[in-house]
Amino acid sequence: MTSGPTDELRVWAPAGLGEVRPGDDLPTLLVDLLRADATARPDRALADGDVLVLTSKVVSKAEGRVVAAADREQAITDETVRVVATREHAAGVTRIVENRLGLVMAAAGVDASNTPDGTVLLLPVDPDTSARAVRVAVAAAFGVRVGVVVSDTAGRPWRQGVADLAIGAAGVAVLDDLRGQVDSFGRPLTMTVTAVADEIAAAAELVKGKAAGRPLAVVRGLGHVVTVDDGPGARVLVRTGDDDMFRQGSAEAYAQGWKDAVERG
Amino acid sequence: MTSGPTDELRVWAPAGLGEVRPGDDLPTLLVDLLRADATARPDRALADGDVLVLTSKVVSKAEGRVVAAADREQAITDETVRVVATREHAAGVTRIVENRLGLVMAAAGVDASNTPDGTVLLLPVDPDTSARAVRVAVAAAFGVRVGVVVSDTAGRPWRQGVADLAIGAAGVAVLDDLRGQVDSFGRPLTMTVTAVADEIAAAAELVKGKAAGRPLAVVRGLGHVVTVDDGPGARVLVRTGDDDMFRQGSAEAYAQGWKDAVERG
Repeated sequence: MTSGPTDELRVWAPAGLGEVRPGDDLPTLLVDLLRADATARPDRALADGDVLVLTSKVVSKAEGRVVAAADREQAITDETVRVVATREHAAGVTRIVENRLGLVMAAAGVDASNTPDGTVLLLPVDPDTSARAVRVAVAAAFGVRVGVVVSDTAGRPWRQGVADLAIGAAGVAVLDDLRGQVDSFGRPLTMTVTAVADEIAAAAELVKGKAAGRPLAVVRGLGHVVTVDDGPGARVLVRTGDDDMFRQGSAEAYAQGWKDAVERG
Repeated sequence: MTSGPTDELRVWAPAGLGEVRPGDDLPTLLVDLLRADATARPDRALADGDVLVLTSKVVSKAEGRVVAAADREQAITDETVRVVATREHAAGVTRIVENRLGLVMAAAGVDASNTPDGTVLLLPVDPDTSARAVRVAVAAAFGVRVGVVVSDTAGRPWRQGVADLAIGAAGVAVLDDLRGQVDSFGRPLTMTVTAVADEIAAAAELVKGKAAGRPLAVVRGLGHVVTVDDGPGARVLVRTGDDDMFRQGSAEAYAQGWKDAVERG
């Protein structure tokens, strides 16, 4: 892996992946899609250093991670490791939880958009492993070394709107550690570790969109973050435990403090 | 403004902006930079629908928002509207606060990287207004309608590493409201409002980098989010008040609950 600025990024989202169904061989479907796209647009033939960004939803669909909408609340419970915060509203209760992937998300990431009527979709079983499988298939089909990111959409504290982030990765330096480099005044950058994989997921979302039926994007121009090894995956982007200053919602933490004081005070 | 998927994004960061100094006319410096870049690379001449992403640091520098490093703690206090959380560590205390722009950031966004020795830099006075000024200058110089985003770098709860987000904007639909559109199953997307300006800032960071001295990026291919009017700016991306479930750090909220129970219980 080399480092340094990239002169130009290109990001595109090939059209033409049909509806993905349980049991489909997703890496092969993606290879076919990329081959067809490169036939129509030879400049888009995959090259070393490209990064593929794949919406988690199609991974989940291939894995058959679909459950009946009636079982949604139980599915959220099953995906939950720890409840972070809850909020009541007109339509029910939103649970913000840490799920089994370590991700803190509303409804544990269980989602009803772009799924067949009457169903909801769980997050992939293991997005890092899914990313590795795509990487292997692409290397076998095209003889190129790419990075792969599996993305999902999440809300963020203190910000309106949702944004995409990386929940799986292979062959991408998900955290670009600039510590040891110097700034333009020659001083060491001591604090800066950039969540590159999250920024890649966000960039890809701008071309994939939510309603467009284009769950795959190719990002060209980030060869310096594509690694020889698969690397640790997106799991290392998760911040939990003592390092997490927002382990509970404010109301939940306040209530817990009150309760403990009453009980022990 | 039209909506829908974009076929391809290009993102590049022109080289050659020198060190920005207090009192510099930043919009004119940027116009000169963009003109020189387009001379060397005619395909990069600005066009309607391009989005410029400007690192807040150069805005602050032009505004002279520099203070002596010895006054850093006082500067953070002055920028703070509300303390969200604090954490002690070997080098002192990190304060995560809501600043006067409504942004929740460590040290109120006061930063020492890429500043002259012995100094720190405050965030711009009004990044939305700064974005508008750049937009006006670009329209006057090149006769094109662009969007402008002012970006900064921030940590995120539950995620390792930092990522760029939008703290100022003009002429960009910062929140792309998909409610009313339908998914690939023809069902309404009822929940999805994408923080487009944050995703644009993230995409731009991938080419600007931290150590490269390229504080400006151009994003081409997002004409559907560039608006006729300047719009409300990045301020609407801020989520505060009752809508903020993480108004206090967990430890702070717990301690407050305990204290209140003891005092009133």
